[in-house]
Amino acid sequence: MPTFLLPDEQAKRISFDNLRAKSAALLLKAGLTAEDANLAADGLVSADLRGVDTHGAANLLRWYLELYRNGTMNPRPSWQITHETPATANIDSDYGLGLVIAPKAMQIAIDKAHKVGVGFVTMHNGRHLGMAQYHALLAVPQNAIGVCLTASGPLMVPTFGREPRLGTNPIAIAVPCAQEPTFVFDAATTIVAGNKIVIAHRLGVPLPPGILSEDDGTPIMHSIPAPSTYSRLLPLGSLPDLASHKGYGLACAVDILTSVLGGLTFGAKLDSGSFSHCVAAINIQAFSNLDDFKRTMDDFVRMLKETPPAAGQERVLVPGQLEWETEQERRSKGIPLHPEFVDWLDQACAQTGV
Amino acid sequence: MPTFLLPDEQAKRISFDNLRAKSAALLLKAGLTAEDANLAADGLVSADLRGVDTHGAANLLRWYLELYRNGTMNPRPSWQITHETPATANIDSDYGLGLVIAPKAMQIAIDKAHKVGVGFVTMHNGRHLGMAQYHALLAVPQNAIGVCLTASGPLMVPTFGREPRLGTNPIAIAVPCAQEPTFVFDAATTIVAGNKIVIAHRLGVPLPPGILSEDDGTPIMHSIPAPSTYSRLLPLGSLPDLASHKGYGLACAVDILTSVLGGLTFGAKLDSGSFSHCVAAINIQAFSNLDDFKRTMDDFVRMLKETPPAAGQERVLVPGQLEWETEQERRSKGIPLHPEFVDWLDQACAQTGV
Repeated sequence: MPTFLLPDEQAKRISFDNLRAKSAALLLKAGLTAEDANLAADGLVSADLRGVDTHGAANLLRWYLELYRNGTMNPRPSWQITHETPATANIDSDYGLGLVIAPKAMQIAIDKAHKVGVGFVTMHNGRHLGMAQYHALLAVPQNAIGVCLTASGPLMVPTFGREPRLGTNPIAIAVPCAQEPTFVFDAATTIVAGNKIVIAHRLGVPLPPGILSEDDGTPIMHSIPAPSTYSRLLPLGSLPDLASHKGYGLACAVDILTSVLGGLTFGAKLDSGSFSHCVAAINIQAFSNLDDFKRTMDDFVRMLKETPPAAGQERVLVPGQLEWETEQERRSKGIPLHPEFVDWLDQACAQTGV
Repeated sequence: MPTFLLPDEQAKRISFDNLRAKSAALLLKAGLTAEDANLAADGLVSADLRGVDTHGAANLLRWYLELYRNGTMNPRPSWQITHETPATANIDSDYGLGLVIAPKAMQIAIDKAHKVGVGFVTMHNGRHLGMAQYHALLAVPQNAIGVCLTASGPLMVPTFGREPRLGTNPIAIAVPCAQEPTFVFDAATTIVAGNKIVIAHRLGVPLPPGILSEDDGTPIMHSIPAPSTYSRLLPLGSLPDLASHKGYGLACAVDILTSVLGGLTFGAKLDSGSFSHCVAAINIQAFSNLDDFKRTMDDFVRMLKETPPAAGQERVLVPGQLEWETEQERRSKGIPLHPEFVDWLDQACAQTGV
């Protein structure tokens, strides 16, 4: 999988706390409450920390501030529950940032899971979610499995199609272990998240085969220069013969469980910058003994790690392992950022008196 | 996607009712109650009807009867709920066929969804599920979204790995529409369900690239003769560069939500023929008006169908559409079956006095 990392000698490193504090300060200036600014900054910079650079401050903070400035995003959302049952809620996000609304929705889901076994909460009229795994991970310290989905306006070309009709529609699930790092699966249902193309373009690196389609819908199965803009991402599977209908179908399922269920709409009808989300929490103790579950997760993860590697490969990874390793490294050495972003950040903080 | 259809001139056609009645009679003879035999036969032959030949009577009935004969599968399971909350249950299947246990589990999930919004039911100590979408579809007439997952012993090679560690671990979701056919996504997290290779071998057709790995874990990216046995299926994505870690990660998630959560075990520890399942039902009216939801689903499905086709393609399909079209055709013309199976079926029915 392409990662598109900035060469280390070009990067400037900033500590997690520093980047989070600066991000929070700029969000506060944009009109958020201190609590919401801190919450959003924590989610945003957690992505930088875990190596999910597509969803970190360097890629998203300027966009978020622009959306607050031009009135597209509401810094003081009057979000409210429009429908509720013991296990479910449907939230009108009032155009608040997903990084602000989804953690509150996840806490509602967790509370419901503790009471009745499962909590499932949709969010409509939403804005960008940030990194999906951030919200899923909130369930883990509360002894629940966390799930988070989000759907956006069209970027994915359906199998056999010529035009984008679905978002990148990621699926995240976080599961506690006893000794092993938390299991975290977090993946777009396209081959790559859209922002990866932006990053590849910025770094001037080529795009591998299988990521985009031609304007006529034909999958591009050779390497190309990373374009500055993109609109036709291929579903997971890339080609019909490699079962791209499965990536496409998963994206549909995500659109249904977020947009259709929560908002009576769907991605292709959403304006650019609009998103629908859902979160779910599953109370592990509703099914079995918590410690036994966590120990079984340890065994499961170790069994996977101990798979003999394929010819020419070093090791088998487990979902969330690379992110965990990156987090350890970046906590100690700081987060490597593009100098252009660091300059902008310093200037923005100086200009606004932060 | 490879479908491996029997050439029409070689097939014998049998009506759905006839095939179901014969299957039920043989299951009854195997020791099931009449109710369970009818239930299992309905699920089994529904797969033949919908064109999911991998999971129909022709592929599975003989195996099921053999498992009953040799005592691996329990024809009279004393299944019971071992853990329960308002939204969840964990069922010990007592080695009963999934086609018998899962419909009952799904009804429990639906009842819970009607009471508290969501129902989520795991099944451990299970046997084969049949076609996952059969169980998901049970929720649809009861105005719920249905979900069904199942995990088996190892068949999938993890990304970068050399040996199988996960099952094909399919994901099914069924969603009601107003006028359009029900939306049904049902897909293994490998490129193909394992039985497809058996069918390809039986038909003597080659296997396309991207489905299996070599013994050393290297993905086979050229066409090969379909082998008579297989043990190394590639995850959805096929290659690491085409994001096979996503198919692998989804398979892990399915294993966790079924085996680890319900049974404190995982696929790689399951004996051959053992399976863990889960079903979930989401009450649509907990989130919005049911009719509005179904109409939005119609709009969503039509929007996808109306995607301009890619160069050289005829049309864009929606998950469940081909199955629905096949069902219409096979209801009127009968189910096309391999003559060898039809001969066996007639003989088995004659021998057992059915």
